[in-house]
Amino acid sequence: MKIARVTGSTISTIKSPRVKETKLLICREADASGTKELGSSYVATDLVDAGVGDLVLTCHGSAARQTPITKETPVDAVIMAVLDNLVVDGEIVFKK
Amino acid sequence: MKIARVTGSTISTIKSPRVKETKLLICREADASGTKELGSSYVATDLVDAGVGDLVLTCHGSAARQTPITKETPVDAVIMAVLDNLVVDGEIVFKK
Amino acid sequence: MKIARVTGSTISTIKSPRVKETKLLICREADASGTKELGSSYVATDLVDAGVGDLVLTCHGSAARQTPITKETPVDAVIMAVLDNLVVDGEIVFKK
Amino acid sequence: MKIARVTGSTISTIKSPRVKETKLLICREADASGTKELGSSYVATDLVDAGVGDLVLTCHGSAARQTPITKETPVDAVIMAVLDNLVVDGEIVFKK
Amino acid sequence: MKIARVTGSTISTIKSPRVKETKLLICREADASGTKELGSSYVATDLVDAGVGDLVLTCHGSAARQTPITKETPVDAVIMAVLDNLVVDGEIVFKK
Repeated sequence: MKIARVTGSTISTIKSPRVKETKLLICREADASGTKELGSSYVATDLVDAGVGDLVLTCHGSAARQTPITKETPVDAVIMAVLDNLVVDGEIVFKK
Repeated sequence: MKIARVTGSTISTIKSPRVKETKLLICREADASGTKELGSSYVATDLVDAGVGDLVLTCHGSAARQTPITKETPVDAVIMAVLDNLVVDGEIVFKK
Repeated sequence: MKIARVTGSTISTIKSPRVKETKLLICREADASGTKELGSSYVATDLVDAGVGDLVLTCHGSAARQTPITKETPVDAVIMAVLDNLVVDGEIVFKK
Repeated sequence: MKIARVTGSTISTIKSPRVKETKLLICREADASGTKELGSSYVATDLVDAGVGDLVLTCHGSAARQTPITKETPVDAVIMAVLDNLVVDGEIVFKK
Repeated sequence: MKIARVTGSTISTIKSPRVKETKLLICREADASGTKELGSSYVATDLVDAGVGDLVLTCHGSAARQTPITKETPVDAVIMAVLDNLVVDGEIVFKK
């Protein structure tokens, strides 16, 4: 799973009826303390009522379809957790 | 899913009869505002009547085969949405 | 799918009897005009009688096994099309 | 599989009841001697009672769900081994 | 498939009984002539009795489980061929 920051939202024209009903959010990978953003933006289906600014976990590939909402839909990334705390080398580096 | 710009089209000799009937478009990943193109070009099966210049979402891997058109075909990327709006940090950064 | 140039061939000792009967070619990703090679070389099972020098499309991951030849074999990349034309921004950038 | 160092732990709000019961650890890819960390951090489900500081193997993609704990859950990375020894070019480069 | 050099071996504590019985080797991607190593090391299950120093093909993702030895195991990379010859642009660039 990637540690990511939710940075925005999308409005789009989608044919798949089940994907249409979901919220597609813009995410960007973050470092282990959630302070630095890395790499390019990507879009993930929200499963946990995440909001812009939240630090989340996204999972990718076929894992993204192991949920009732995304099963058998053309979706390759989902937000599956909102992060509350990150502890690295014994120190709390992120607290919601 | 990747935010991508459709940049072109392909004509090719394909054996798989079902892939032959689909439109294979050239895409290039874009940043979250759709203004800068990133990385190398790739080819995706069009599911949403996208045109050259459109900003789209592409999904990858086995997700690309979760549609009636691409089911059980050798296809690893599809265009599954045409983007109408992108909102980053509360600002509209892209409007079709 | 990746746009790729076929650059060579391989001879190898393989245990899987069905993979043994296939042609494994060396490919290198190319840019959208097919003139510049990018990244490192990889090996793909040929499904379309491609030859060295051809510009092709390769598909990757589980997509590579959605064909009668590669079904249930340890193969993660196939050549699924020989490119005849590439058109970018309204211009023919590659013609076979 | 990736050679990785476990660097931390996460607390998060997850909807999937089965993922909730697992331990999600922060990992960072390491070189073949386990001394240098590479790339960005990622989060993996612990299957082997790994602890912070351990050098482990993580597996990714659908492979991560080939275990009773992770089967049919939205998980794309697991820690599947704790490394005891790494031998490169005939030399022991890592010993737990 | 990736062209890779086998560089070492691993000893580890694994829970999955079927993975325990396999040989996990350290590999590093190589260029098309097998002379230059590229990128970071990774670990793959050996299916072809490869040894340290051998130039091999590794396959990745769900492809790695399309063999009797790795079926339904948490394994995402296997060595599926030992390379005997590589021919690039009509020249033999590698001979075992």
